[in-house]
Amino acid sequence: MNIGLITIGNELLSGFTTDTNASWIGQEVSKFGGEVVKHITIGDTTDAIIAALDEASRVAQVIITTGGLGPTHDDLTADTFYIYFNDQPVFDEEYWSYLESRFQRFGRGIPRINRNQALKPQKGFSVPNPVGSARGLHYEQQGKHYFCLPGVPREMKAMMNRTILPWIKSQAGEVQVVKTLRTTGIAESALAEKISVDIKAAENQVTVAFLPQIIGVDIRMISPNKAWLDALEQRILPSIKPYLFGTGNQTLEAVLGNQLKAFGLTLAVAESCTGGLLSHRLTNTPGSSEYFPGGIVTYSNAMKMNILGVKEETLNSFGAVSAETAREMAAGVRRKTGADIGIGITGIAGPGGGTKDKPVGLVYIGLAVEAGTVAKKYEFSHDRETNKLLSTQAALNLLRKWLYERK
Amino acid sequence: MNIGLITIGNELLSGFTTDTNASWIGQEVSKFGGEVVKHITIGDTTDAIIAALDEASRVAQVIITTGGLGPTHDDLTADTFYIYFNDQPVFDEEYWSYLESRFQRFGRGIPRINRNQALKPQKGFSVPNPVGSARGLHYEQQGKHYFCLPGVPREMKAMMNRTILPWIKSQAGEVQVVKTLRTTGIAESALAEKISVDIKAAENQVTVAFLPQIIGVDIRMISPNKAWLDALEQRILPSIKPYLFGTGNQTLEAVLGNQLKAFGLTLAVAESCTGGLLSHRLTNTPGSSEYFPGGIVTYSNAMKMNILGVKEETLNSFGAVSAETAREMAAGVRRKTGADIGIGITGIAGPGGGTKDKPVGLVYIGLAVEAGTVAKKYEFSHDRETNKLLSTQAALNLLRKWLYERK
Repeated sequence: MNIGLITIGNELLSGFTTDTNASWIGQEVSKFGGEVVKHITIGDTTDAIIAALDEASRVAQVIITTGGLGPTHDDLTADTFYIYFNDQPVFDEEYWSYLESRFQRFGRGIPRINRNQALKPQKGFSVPNPVGSARGLHYEQQGKHYFCLPGVPREMKAMMNRTILPWIKSQAGEVQVVKTLRTTGIAESALAEKISVDIKAAENQVTVAFLPQIIGVDIRMISPNKAWLDALEQRILPSIKPYLFGTGNQTLEAVLGNQLKAFGLTLAVAESCTGGLLSHRLTNTPGSSEYFPGGIVTYSNAMKMNILGVKEETLNSFGAVSAETAREMAAGVRRKTGADIGIGITGIAGPGGGTKDKPVGLVYIGLAVEAGTVAKKYEFSHDRETNKLLSTQAALNLLRKWLYERK
Repeated sequence: MNIGLITIGNELLSGFTTDTNASWIGQEVSKFGGEVVKHITIGDTTDAIIAALDEASRVAQVIITTGGLGPTHDDLTADTFYIYFNDQPVFDEEYWSYLESRFQRFGRGIPRINRNQALKPQKGFSVPNPVGSARGLHYEQQGKHYFCLPGVPREMKAMMNRTILPWIKSQAGEVQVVKTLRTTGIAESALAEKISVDIKAAENQVTVAFLPQIIGVDIRMISPNKAWLDALEQRILPSIKPYLFGTGNQTLEAVLGNQLKAFGLTLAVAESCTGGLLSHRLTNTPGSSEYFPGGIVTYSNAMKMNILGVKEETLNSFGAVSAETAREMAAGVRRKTGADIGIGITGIAGPGGGTKDKPVGLVYIGLAVEAGTVAKKYEFSHDRETNKLLSTQAALNLLRKWLYERK
């Protein structure tokens, strides 16, 4: 079932408020067989609302609007619905009494300005609002259904859950199955090249989208038929296996945490250029204290020597940004904390600090385990925060590969 | 100047990705005299893109699209622009060579799938992409201007800053003056109460918006006249002074970094429940190595004792989450690193680990300086990641107040 979404409010267009209603509605309707095919954001003007209703109804069977149902002069959505459906609302004495008693319960009189919230349609229906005073509207015209809801997320969600989503479920034929495969360590184009033949072969059965983020690429598969989706997944798995770390909303750090727990291993990290971000990511996972005793952020050379035991000779001969220092940091934090695995990261996050031999983005990552210590070289070419993020991702990916081969 | 914004991508409609580009663009264009009057989000289909171009151009002089410029089969925006403007793109050998050398620099060959990114328009212009391979497009038709940009926020922003915003500025008539005052440590309603009389008095001269974030509230003032804006700022400054830490895009950690540098002071931090986030935030500021030797993330009690010198007796008598432990962590990291200032954070980030006496969200923060050590108690009531963030903000705010009184 195709759904057109219209969110109304000047503050959404000016960017001072990020529209979180739209993504919530997009996700929720998809669980009940609906699919948002167009989303229009407009300001509070009658002309804009009418144009958007026309445009949305061209591509959707169901149109949902949010916003503009408050009591103030710039709330025009209900009035515009009455115009659009050529309706004459009537004053709903019963609802007004209810509102009066509701306001009294909070120890206040009801302002006259709220009277417009007690209007009810003659040609359409009111949609109950279990948590606020602004009711919604529901009209049907030429086989299409139009709902208007308040913009306050709590009220909108309550009305969606109580009325709109059950209605969508009752009307929708098929429910879409969604699965996301999460990869890291490979670029979108390289990933696409590996599996484009498979995707092409299934294009009438499964819709595939590549969702690139800076630290990885998600492959999202959507299909009306779970068997089709599973078949495509099985076909592409061999090609993406080396890069696949999880599904759905799983994070790399949470997946690795589960593996560490399963193996009974602990991990400690020593960070220079990433400045604590790797520790932060690892500790975003609830229960990480089971496998993560802690980390040491050694921004200065003195701390690298005094706390991690990096040798002065190493820093003098090879520099703080070197494979040798990364190895000694990894081994040092492992020794110092008694963890099974130590990771050491040293590099130049930028924008300053680069030289011709050691440019901004040069990073070395060391991994120390019982069997020995290795270091890998990376060259990133982004801004400071992105270089930090990519370095932590590379470190986690190094650990992922080590755990993978250990299995 | 009226701007129509079209964001393209199935993942935006399905709600799996929240659209942050739109609010960024809405805010940025307003600084240069532009105003987004309509925002349409659609999936990656040629028909939907063409309909949106038609609809946006009915109400706007400038149309900006983001998304759908990648190399994969579902990226249709550039092709649709060529159709819409009846253009025949040609292969740009020079740009392809550049892309090849760019990929080579990263030690990779360029996949053939990227060839479509080397097309260039004949009737329009390419918009340079300083940070990625997908260039944008710029067409003019019947006095209206159409730009298409990639959806990757980093690339979109670089191209907006480099090309589109200067172009809008050159075309727009009246430019609005914008100033943002950044506060922390006070709720939106309390802040509004302090200055509502001043805002009301200037309401025909300056538009004021409160932008609450989880770690503070920004006050954004917009006016066509700088003198009006300055006058309002002078009137409200005395009331907000205790909470004001900066202006514009300044971060609290960068402002504090400048103060530490000015005073010639160094800072080291010991973190438990924040897990490295405070170190991460401090090191996001370029040049932070001048005042930040490093931090120690002691997730386990053993690390608190072995590395920071927290007494076993303290942990046994008062617990790891206590004012006493926070003080010993702060003093310990100061002693261990030789820094002038030590901060220690210990608490329960959640969702697990809380008890009746020590619930989730309970946090103690210690501040150690030459004159002695203090600890403060906080009670947050959010999810794990937000509790971590609020704890680091409270720690930075504690430091801010100490530096403020020292002046």
